[in-house]
Amino acid sequence: MVRVGIINVTGYAGVELARLLARHPEVKLAAVTGRSAAGRQLESVFPHLGSLGLEVAQEVDDVDVCFSALPHHASAELVAELLARGQRVIDISADFRLRDLCTYERWYGHHPSPHLLPSAVYGLPELHRREIAVARLVANPGCYPTASILGLAPIAHLIEADVVIDAKSGISGAGRTMKLSVNHFCEVNENVQAYGLDGHRHQPEISQELGELRRRRGGEDLPALEITFVPHLIPMTRGILATCYARLREPLSSLQLRELYREFYSGHPFVRVVDYSPQTKQTLGSNECVIHPRVDDSGYRVLVLSCIDNLVKGAAGQAVQNMNLMLGLPETMGLEGLPLFP
Amino acid sequence: MVRVGIINVTGYAGVELARLLARHPEVKLAAVTGRSAAGRQLESVFPHLGSLGLEVAQEVDDVDVCFSALPHHASAELVAELLARGQRVIDISADFRLRDLCTYERWYGHHPSPHLLPSAVYGLPELHRREIAVARLVANPGCYPTASILGLAPIAHLIEADVVIDAKSGISGAGRTMKLSVNHFCEVNENVQAYGLDGHRHQPEISQELGELRRRRGGEDLPALEITFVPHLIPMTRGILATCYARLREPLSSLQLRELYREFYSGHPFVRVVDYSPQTKQTLGSNECVIHPRVDDSGYRVLVLSCIDNLVKGAAGQAVQNMNLMLGLPETMGLEGLPLFP
Amino acid sequence: MVRVGIINVTGYAGVELARLLARHPEVKLAAVTGRSAAGRQLESVFPHLGSLGLEVAQEVDDVDVCFSALPHHASAELVAELLARGQRVIDISADFRLRDLCTYERWYGHHPSPHLLPSAVYGLPELHRREIAVARLVANPGCYPTASILGLAPIAHLIEADVVIDAKSGISGAGRTMKLSVNHFCEVNENVQAYGLDGHRHQPEISQELGELRRRRGGEDLPALEITFVPHLIPMTRGILATCYARLREPLSSLQLRELYREFYSGHPFVRVVDYSPQTKQTLGSNECVIHPRVDDSGYRVLVLSCIDNLVKGAAGQAVQNMNLMLGLPETMGLEGLPLFP
Amino acid sequence: MVRVGIINVTGYAGVELARLLARHPEVKLAAVTGRSAAGRQLESVFPHLGSLGLEVAQEVDDVDVCFSALPHHASAELVAELLARGQRVIDISADFRLRDLCTYERWYGHHPSPHLLPSAVYGLPELHRREIAVARLVANPGCYPTASILGLAPIAHLIEADVVIDAKSGISGAGRTMKLSVNHFCEVNENVQAYGLDGHRHQPEISQELGELRRRRGGEDLPALEITFVPHLIPMTRGILATCYARLREPLSSLQLRELYREFYSGHPFVRVVDYSPQTKQTLGSNECVIHPRVDDSGYRVLVLSCIDNLVKGAAGQAVQNMNLMLGLPETMGLEGLPLFP
Repeated sequence: MVRVGIINVTGYAGVELARLLARHPEVKLAAVTGRSAAGRQLESVFPHLGSLGLEVAQEVDDVDVCFSALPHHASAELVAELLARGQRVIDISADFRLRDLCTYERWYGHHPSPHLLPSAVYGLPELHRREIAVARLVANPGCYPTASILGLAPIAHLIEADVVIDAKSGISGAGRTMKLSVNHFCEVNENVQAYGLDGHRHQPEISQELGELRRRRGGEDLPALEITFVPHLIPMTRGILATCYARLREPLSSLQLRELYREFYSGHPFVRVVDYSPQTKQTLGSNECVIHPRVDDSGYRVLVLSCIDNLVKGAAGQAVQNMNLMLGLPETMGLEGLPLFP
Repeated sequence: MVRVGIINVTGYAGVELARLLARHPEVKLAAVTGRSAAGRQLESVFPHLGSLGLEVAQEVDDVDVCFSALPHHASAELVAELLARGQRVIDISADFRLRDLCTYERWYGHHPSPHLLPSAVYGLPELHRREIAVARLVANPGCYPTASILGLAPIAHLIEADVVIDAKSGISGAGRTMKLSVNHFCEVNENVQAYGLDGHRHQPEISQELGELRRRRGGEDLPALEITFVPHLIPMTRGILATCYARLREPLSSLQLRELYREFYSGHPFVRVVDYSPQTKQTLGSNECVIHPRVDDSGYRVLVLSCIDNLVKGAAGQAVQNMNLMLGLPETMGLEGLPLFP
Repeated sequence: MVRVGIINVTGYAGVELARLLARHPEVKLAAVTGRSAAGRQLESVFPHLGSLGLEVAQEVDDVDVCFSALPHHASAELVAELLARGQRVIDISADFRLRDLCTYERWYGHHPSPHLLPSAVYGLPELHRREIAVARLVANPGCYPTASILGLAPIAHLIEADVVIDAKSGISGAGRTMKLSVNHFCEVNENVQAYGLDGHRHQPEISQELGELRRRRGGEDLPALEITFVPHLIPMTRGILATCYARLREPLSSLQLRELYREFYSGHPFVRVVDYSPQTKQTLGSNECVIHPRVDDSGYRVLVLSCIDNLVKGAAGQAVQNMNLMLGLPETMGLEGLPLFP
Repeated sequence: MVRVGIINVTGYAGVELARLLARHPEVKLAAVTGRSAAGRQLESVFPHLGSLGLEVAQEVDDVDVCFSALPHHASAELVAELLARGQRVIDISADFRLRDLCTYERWYGHHPSPHLLPSAVYGLPELHRREIAVARLVANPGCYPTASILGLAPIAHLIEADVVIDAKSGISGAGRTMKLSVNHFCEVNENVQAYGLDGHRHQPEISQELGELRRRRGGEDLPALEITFVPHLIPMTRGILATCYARLREPLSSLQLRELYREFYSGHPFVRVVDYSPQTKQTLGSNECVIHPRVDDSGYRVLVLSCIDNLVKGAAGQAVQNMNLMLGLPETMGLEGLPLFP
């Protein structure tokens, strides 16, 4: 059995990792940490995990793979240390997602461990499976980027520069730390709001990955994508729907478009291309990304709807998928659970 | 006191009309009808209206103004009769919103009373206040069109042809008639979905009004708007947020844009242009439309967020506003209630 | 116009007071305070009140009636001062609800102004209308006590000692201050929990009022009520349903019981006794208390369902009702708004 | 591999069975039926099960164990046939839960297969594990009875006759068939209501099981329990909290009570007795029943809080648990999934 640990289990990504790893047939969840909860029983923080009988530790030692669910900055500081101990690391934070240091600094400030950036792999298996398999440090993608990139990747090189991504997220995406206007029940229930209008940190991630694909498949001459990304808070706990609007450079029918998507994702067990409008609820608790691409009658206007559970494919599930690849295990192992419906 | 009646009080627009009209200081809610409920006490259908002591009647006779909350087709059939009796009519259905008969027939089929189309006025007071004041038949706008048109009207002639409106609506927008995937609690709770992807009936309404404004203010040479309108169902009861994406033909700053919006809506008591991201909850139960327009750093990419309560400004409240104008009463009378928060 | 002020407008009781008082035809909302928000526009705290154009002040001076929505202790400290200035005071906090100082101290600790207790009137108009009319200090009841006392008052002297009140409250009852397990959306959504199992502060209030009624109407020989009160948090914003279980000392039919309730509440405009199971939604935004009492076939087992909007009849609305009585205005003035449904 | 089938997969119990059985390591989900959906792909009814590639069949043939998720009456008609074919049957309907035919007829009308009643076993493994293991027909308990009986079973013989069970259920308990006041989103969201006040069909089930335990452990002389059972609809999809109120005949401390509960459920993997107030969310998607019993200071008044996921331990999960016992498999097989939180 591979020994694994979770740093900062007390947030939503952390606790979801615990749910998945505790039932993974080839790993042993050896240790979990949580700054404020150190020394307490995990049950006192998360009663639903009472049956695991784990204690929240101060440190994660003696594991083969470590998942860091720390906030950015704090994560990068620790990751260097973990790697030095010989552990393989999957970092849930944003610290190693952006390959360009300047871009990182513009959005997040000073980077504690820039020397590690070149060796980090962006952990979206549908785009980087081979690199992930041999990586020692995997940067787990953000939730919005996962839904958005998977939604547009197959056509990144086929579209005009102007792209709109109107994303809707459940409240858990804003984390467990309390913020009045973002997660107080009475302020967000029965309510919809757009936020991050001055720029959201997930945008450069989306631009990086779609931009790279566009250049690689479409050539350097294509004008760079100009992505307008507007996230919205929706009164539900989990789920992201990314509604993506683009224009094709050459017309296609919806049938052709779906064929193209199905080919692109052939061999990728967690992406399902469907003929109907997908719903976030259809992914609840599962690692699936369900995508519905379509073209209007003109053949140019593309609409892509892309759904995930933000805590599974958008965080913990994708991290486990990455771990499977890093360990040479079947990609779907421990992630077979079907969505909870209703 | 002016005597008013509500045809088909048993739907959500009807019951909201009852709430507002029963407390309007210058009208008497003289009669309400409801096909299946005729003869029953209104309290047995809507216990919260028990204090009104009304009975659901078979017919609305002897009133000065009649609100029809019937479905389309059924409404147009009745409206002709009501007008013939000398009643002024505010029609909540879609039957008289589209001025072009062919467009109507494409989306709704046969029109029972096409001869009335020329005299009907589109009841969006912020665009047609003077015509409404003298109309005998007012077509109350749809909920999505109200939010969308008010969101884009001030710049209809200043933008490129390509416009995206990504709209989010609470479940009450889908009506009181039960449909499994649309309003069964367990199917729509904790869920987001786009719908109407093959075309939504509110789109021609939006195109008609914004198109007319564009031509009038921008000239006939401007290319017609191409509006991509995608509605979404959100797990909340009331509220619409229309997120509108457009590109300016000439650059503006956010400040300039807001100034332009404030001028456009000056003298219109129910539209508020704000400097922050508006939330649907801030309009709950009130007739306000709260709009936040902004431009990105390039000066071209416009984002407009427009919020309403779909049952008030998007239906019953706007109908009362229209009635006030038709009767020469102050536009805000009976609509002064502040939003319910939280 | 009577000048009124709200101390601590930034909580949920405060903001609901603002909604009601700003539209009250006989008062002028002259000033509002809020500790952390002093000096800011009210719109920056509550955008939905933007149209009022109020600034949050440091102090409320120069008003005739003052509403204190401060937490307990802080409220009692200030109230003495306000009374000394000649203002009449309606205190939303718990500081003057319990007539017995020892009981107060057991549940809330030291009382800052015990000398005011004898002159304070418990502000439940259905029980104390005449005292309220001449009071200078009214203690506005708690939300649970309002629903529970109104639910059982008519039979307080007719039942056995053993009473169970199983109460369900929306999240706004827990206030605007953030607490992870109590109002973080993701922790309370799709969830039900009982709380306050070691004793809830609203219990002595219920016992005081029902106990007094029982003694007055049933005599001193009746054994004192033993009330088991268990509150639950329900995933909704507003509303309380108190499900009350008792046993009659002498059997009655449901018809007789309802007749008895209707007589008891005759002349009280905000209590409605109904023949069906009431729903909290039927009171949303209104000052009504809807009560359904029933007896089982044995004639002994009584079930009473009592519904209110916790922020209206359970807080701000009742406070306005008290103000009306204190000022000699019609009891319902400014409270005529019908419930918002759906 | 054991071959299993689901009759009427299109309801909520049916679809939850599909989720669990499709991932059970020792069974093959060989066939599913659904009256209206026969001949369609399961994906067209439940998109989230698209990856299973199943078709909805007309009949379930050639299986070893059959789960009937039909409504009562229809189920009893079919069950006789399935048994005759040699299949073992787990019936999710109410048809074989009540051992007394008269009681059945009072609540459900005519029984289509009364001759099967004597051989049917009430499928609550914590009370009837041994009988289930050898049964050919298991009557899966109702959701309310599961939470209520498990909550009170350990003290059924230690309490006074008068018992109150105030139960709160998510909307899925009312099924997938649409009923305006029961599952239309806009009618039940932001709302709480009691229902079934004239008597709920789950009450005789609770009385039967607790009554039998009481007689067996306390003797025939104990007065029969008088259970007041009041169910409530809560605006959430899944979960039941049963709040149970009773009085001990002899006083106990909370510590003693919990010890007694822990002993009673020792060896039962799905019941967890805890020291804190349990929340329905802590059981979401899992087969656990979490119970918190406590006594007040007097030592007599008992409060028991009992939580389950109504579709898992209250329906499909319990059915799989029963199947495991019937097949001699480990009781927890296929039910190891941890709760989904948040």
